Amino acid sequence: MSARTAPPAPAEGLRDVLDWLEERRAAHRFEVEPIAFDALDGWSFDPVTGDLGHRSGRFFTVRGLHVTTKDAGPAWHQPIIVQPEVGILGILVKEFDGVPHFLMQAKMEPGNSNLLQISPTVQATRSNYTKAHKGADVRYLEYFRGARQGRVLADVLQSEHGSWFFRKSNRNMLVEVEGDVPAHEDFRWLTLQQIGRLLRRDNVINMDARTVLACLPWPGPGGLAPHQDIALLSWFTEERSAHEVHARTVPLAGLPGWRRGARSIVHEEGRYFDVVAVSVQAGSREVAHWTQPLFEPKGLGVTAFLTRRIGGVPHLLVHARVEAGFAETVELGPTVQYTPSNYAHLTGSDRPLFLDAVLGAGPAAIRYEARHSEEGGRFRNAESRYLFVEADAVAAPLDPPPGYLWATPYQLTALLRHNHYLNVQARTLLSCLTTGAVRL
Amino acid sequence: MSARTAPPAPAEGLRDVLDWLEERRAAHRFEVEPIAFDALDGWSFDPVTGDLGHRSGRFFTVRGLHVTTKDAGPAWHQPIIVQPEVGILGILVKEFDGVPHFLMQAKMEPGNSNLLQISPTVQATRSNYTKAHKGADVRYLEYFRGARQGRVLADVLQSEHGSWFFRKSNRNMLVEVEGDVPAHEDFRWLTLQQIGRLLRRDNVINMDARTVLACLPWPGPGGLAPHQDIALLSWFTEERSAHEVHARTVPLAGLPGWRRGARSIVHEEGRYFDVVAVSVQAGSREVAHWTQPLFEPKGLGVTAFLTRRIGGVPHLLVHARVEAGFAETVELGPTVQYTPSNYAHLTGSDRPLFLDAVLGAGPAAIRYEARHSEEGGRFRNAESRYLFVEADAVAAPLDPPPGYLWATPYQLTALLRHNHYLNVQARTLLSCLTTGAVRL
Repeated sequence: MSARTAPPAPAEGLRDVLDWLEERRAAHRFEVEPIAFDALDGWSFDPVTGDLGHRSGRFFTVRGLHVTTKDAGPAWHQPIIVQPEVGILGILVKEFDGVPHFLMQAKMEPGNSNLLQISPTVQATRSNYTKAHKGADVRYLEYFRGARQGRVLADVLQSEHGSWFFRKSNRNMLVEVEGDVPAHEDFRWLTLQQIGRLLRRDNVINMDARTVLACLPWPGPGGLAPHQDIALLSWFTEERSAHEVHARTVPLAGLPGWRRGARSIVHEEGRYFDVVAVSVQAGSREVAHWTQPLFEPKGLGVTAFLTRRIGGVPHLLVHARVEAGFAETVELGPTVQYTPSNYAHLTGSDRPLFLDAVLGAGPAAIRYEARHSEEGGRFRNAESRYLFVEADAVAAPLDPPPGYLWATPYQLTALLRHNHYLNVQARTLLSCLTTGAVRL
Repeated sequence: MSARTAPPAPAEGLRDVLDWLEERRAAHRFEVEPIAFDALDGWSFDPVTGDLGHRSGRFFTVRGLHVTTKDAGPAWHQPIIVQPEVGILGILVKEFDGVPHFLMQAKMEPGNSNLLQISPTVQATRSNYTKAHKGADVRYLEYFRGARQGRVLADVLQSEHGSWFFRKSNRNMLVEVEGDVPAHEDFRWLTLQQIGRLLRRDNVINMDARTVLACLPWPGPGGLAPHQDIALLSWFTEERSAHEVHARTVPLAGLPGWRRGARSIVHEEGRYFDVVAVSVQAGSREVAHWTQPLFEPKGLGVTAFLTRRIGGVPHLLVHARVEAGFAETVELGPTVQYTPSNYAHLTGSDRPLFLDAVLGAGPAAIRYEARHSEEGGRFRNAESRYLFVEADAVAAPLDPPPGYLWATPYQLTALLRHNHYLNVQARTLLSCLTTGAVRL
């Protein structure tokens, strides 16, 4: 099963990596079928609360969320994924011939439109690695838990989608090792350059890999020492203080504005997302067959940083975003984080700021564009166009509106040493910088 | 009412400051009386939930809390203060003759045993400064809100007591100004040296001042640039990931283990704290008379860092503490944070680690000791002995037990640029270092 695979030479192109990915895709049998809720195995709606959970009490539960904000519009209800345990997203790093390589996995996830993408070395919920599903061991877990060998390069809790998860954090880790590491056939050592080139393609590097890669220490103007500008921190504190959001979980049964059918839970105006169920047949996962619920958002998202050179230095326009599921009200997101069906009914000043600057950008202004999937273990066909768009003074003034701030990529990546400054969409875009997929 | 007061010369002793404090104490009329709950004005128990709240819906509410932890002992219930709004704790800084001075306030708080202590320039809940109680303006607030003048030295959200508050944060700010600042008679410019000397006395510098002073940028070995050791951050992440705590508010009525009488809510075995009510008559607060609930803990606490020189550099033994009210499960606390009545029934290995090393320390090993009060606006007679105790290799080995780590004071103060790494008790002790009250 396992062998010591020599790493590809750094100069090697992508063809070999893509061939390997196709070969792994062919080697496993993947089938994902939408099913009715009553065909779920082990999952059911609680007779009292209507919450959708697993009989083991582990994995995750779909509950209702009631959200009220002070001075920020009407209250709302929505389904939400509650998964309090902290998972591990870990990438193993090792130098070959002086070049750091990253051990990446070809991993199937049922929600991805192409099913198989490149994931971190370890991508495991606590339920996974404590064997709630009685499956196989999680490979390479020993490098990320307990009295581990190796040098930790990054180790930080980061949030995931605050619109879909209630206070979810995963542990993002990069660990460098020196000794021999047996590489299983579903795993492969890739250089940062290769990963950066793969990130320019649609749907190859999965979300879990992207968020870990964003946390890679990134040399800034002053070397590796983190530089946290007090002005940026003070603005962040002000934004976090200014918003009062009360979000509490409530029973999923009878959730106002949402309707449960045999195969989906939908918003009564068809907005936001559906809750659906799928049956999965797979050879490469820890267990060979399972069923599970997924959230399926409506339509292709648009997620973008506007960028400008200020004093010769590239800056990104960050947005202090309230998402109901954040543990602490506000995190920094991209300039635009837009899901068409959430906003299609809005016009004029209710439309998201800066959206038109992104949608109307000409080819010369688009510095980066690729489609990426959100976590395919929880979300089905959740894709977004991710962009860096160069803006001019008209579209994006130096003195931006309240809630927005120009920051350097280096300031932002330095914040990734700490919890919950940057949301997962911003981290996807920052991973394009730490891997060199885009240079500003 | 206000005049431009010349600052005291830096070389000046404490006598003048203490005289001023006594003079302010005499100038105001302070009376605090315990009262029955039904003598509260504007506060009442909700007829359905039994929660104790104010008719305006602002200030704070006393509710019940139900806490379960995974792999960490039995569940419990307790009353908790719910105060979701973020207050401002701000100190104004200004140089006189090249020496930084801090504008401190002589402020009465009903829970303090000596009522009047030295507080930050601004210590205001959002209810305060948005006038929920229709009182006078909060002085100097304009330096800490909106388009303010001055240079921000620190601006960060920090937690307060996780055993008594549910996810409470306050904004800790230090702002340096250059222009003239009119000093009201209840305010006075103090040097850091003076503050450090006052911190060596019992119950002079209040908790709100201490937590802000802890956030003062503190020059470390490499200057002011924050140095965050990845080993420390990784250990913190591991501790935060390892604990799963579920805390949810529940109705105060019928809270298991607690009994409500006419004048107090008490634990059935007399442990932890009582909820009581007081009537306050004051001339120096925004309003002249009010009533309110307070939490009154049982007995004098013991809060201490053990310290050792490692490789010639002073280190503190920090403890990764779970407190049910923390927004994120774990923060770093002192080596010992002990309230006798919570533990008096425990023996042997159930007694808190390192407690005996603190209680048994001889005079030569005690590098610092003073009694300080916790926030007197919420807590009555909540005092603790705060200590730095020099430990030997027997009492405190270099390889400490799980949940403990040796860190330098500089590493810890650098973490105070960010949210929720260090709990409020650790911050009190660190303020003794940033002000020079103790030198290790």
